[in-house]
Amino acid sequence: MASEFDLIGRYFTRAAPADVLGVGDDCAMFPVPAGRHVATSVDLLLEGRHFFSDVDPRALGHKSLAVNLSDLAAMGASPLGCVLGIGLPQADEAWVDAFSQGFLALCDTHACPLIGGDTTRSNQGVVISVTVFGSVDPNLALRRDGARPDDDIWVSGTLGAADVAYRLLAGALAPDPVRLAATRAALEWPTPRLALGRALAGMAHAALDVSDGLLQDLGHILKASGVGAVLDYAALPVDPALTGLSPEDVAHAVLAGGDVYELCFTAGRQRRAAVQQAAREAGVPVSRIGAVQREPGLVVLDDSGTPMPLRTRGFDHFGLD
Amino acid sequence: MASEFDLIGRYFTRAAPADVLGVGDDCAMFPVPAGRHVATSVDLLLEGRHFFSDVDPRALGHKSLAVNLSDLAAMGASPLGCVLGIGLPQADEAWVDAFSQGFLALCDTHACPLIGGDTTRSNQGVVISVTVFGSVDPNLALRRDGARPDDDIWVSGTLGAADVAYRLLAGALAPDPVRLAATRAALEWPTPRLALGRALAGMAHAALDVSDGLLQDLGHILKASGVGAVLDYAALPVDPALTGLSPEDVAHAVLAGGDVYELCFTAGRQRRAAVQQAAREAGVPVSRIGAVQREPGLVVLDDSGTPMPLRTRGFDHFGLD
Repeated sequence: MASEFDLIGRYFTRAAPADVLGVGDDCAMFPVPAGRHVATSVDLLLEGRHFFSDVDPRALGHKSLAVNLSDLAAMGASPLGCVLGIGLPQADEAWVDAFSQGFLALCDTHACPLIGGDTTRSNQGVVISVTVFGSVDPNLALRRDGARPDDDIWVSGTLGAADVAYRLLAGALAPDPVRLAATRAALEWPTPRLALGRALAGMAHAALDVSDGLLQDLGHILKASGVGAVLDYAALPVDPALTGLSPEDVAHAVLAGGDVYELCFTAGRQRRAAVQQAAREAGVPVSRIGAVQREPGLVVLDDSGTPMPLRTRGFDHFGLD
Repeated sequence: MASEFDLIGRYFTRAAPADVLGVGDDCAMFPVPAGRHVATSVDLLLEGRHFFSDVDPRALGHKSLAVNLSDLAAMGASPLGCVLGIGLPQADEAWVDAFSQGFLALCDTHACPLIGGDTTRSNQGVVISVTVFGSVDPNLALRRDGARPDDDIWVSGTLGAADVAYRLLAGALAPDPVRLAATRAALEWPTPRLALGRALAGMAHAALDVSDGLLQDLGHILKASGVGAVLDYAALPVDPALTGLSPEDVAHAVLAGGDVYELCFTAGRQRRAAVQQAAREAGVPVSRIGAVQREPGLVVLDDSGTPMPLRTRGFDHFGLD
């Protein structure tokens, strides 16, 4: 390793919490509360594929951890710590400083200390690998395979803003600086719903975070649980920043748009008040958007109660098999 | 995610052990034995930087996990599982099949199940990120900061073969097919010393694995422990495959050659018999190569007991500060 990269590693080195062995040994070490299991998730983020080369490095630092914390949230787990692997084409200290600020600020917000890592030169683009660890009661963890017929289907927050921001930046939508300003934070500064996930542990039957689009991700729950679902399109929480877009662009954004990091979950009908109470305590709105049914398949009903022709509108690559 | 990459993910999907939630949910989940801490390490391996583009994918799969298991070994930890992030320029199923065979065979050897991951297309080269988890008694863990004056310094196995193989493949040494055949396995199929690490837990005072070269890595122990050391060059276990190389090439290989993944550790002089017994039980030879001393600095004595002029021979980039 070049010494300049050792230097860069120091931007990520902080004092470890008590009982934790942090950066600087062969491994990091941390304790796990008695009776709980470790929940872990890894995400690989590659320049030019998962983020634009000119992204604000502070936002990228935030998002690199946020997408992993979102996986912990979707299990109902509480963060214990994280490790970061980062490959950089050059030792750009200003870039690293900004990236580390965004990353470490989110570490602090959620008490998820950075306890280890690997810093290396990349002769390609920027490569980021984050692995998070959380703890969860295995009997209360929110899995994907627990949805039951007649469960309500819920989603947190609003849908569509991140997709619209992405398409504006990628040139797939006509330039619109006002709309970009209103949607960009959803794409670049997602909020992991950790408090909501913890509150739902033991209450929701199944959950995940919407990273690849509502229909595709809900499809994972349905497949894992061996059930189907009907969604009410009018009940979807469309982000206000989408006002004025064509119905087709709105439908794409809310049904197929990825990078959302809201929680989609199912719960018994008798838990409606409890779900709403949990959402209030977590400080994030939730919307009841449909119901699980015994018959396989995923149907979205439009305002008149007619199934929307998803396949003919370009959604057949969802592979909802 | 393109469906072809979902397909590729299946090469890595195996039934999880009892009590473990494996591939397929937002997070993997695993229990940790009571009273033990989690030890974790991440390594990022990039094509063209950490491995040649034409490397045997089965060997690469093995090595990607081996270098992480070596970090667990250096803590005295026992594997619990691992997660893999992999970015590929194209969906080459034959390559992935071979890679997964090498990776999963080592998982099986060390009871370290692959429990989660992230598979994505890379518009750069092949990107591999492995995070391993192990368990260890925090009071017995082998840290870097425990070396004491008058400790013996030990190293397992032999030194130099991986460096010579690397230099032959990179063209830094004249072509020599016989020597390449004799050294290549050391570079491409390293053996993590997990049994030795476990046996040394509670016995050695400090340990690490030699990934960046003996002098540089031993320097980490000395710095963390606030001590110095004298090494006896004649006592270093030079790999027999180095026979016939120039003294300079041998010295470079054994003192500065990386990619070794042997354990370097210190232990009290009164534990010599116990260390040798642990090594016999672990099935790997160990060599006593020097001693820790109170005075800072790292000196290597040649056959006549004279300090070798390391700095004038190109070793000053080790940064032994």
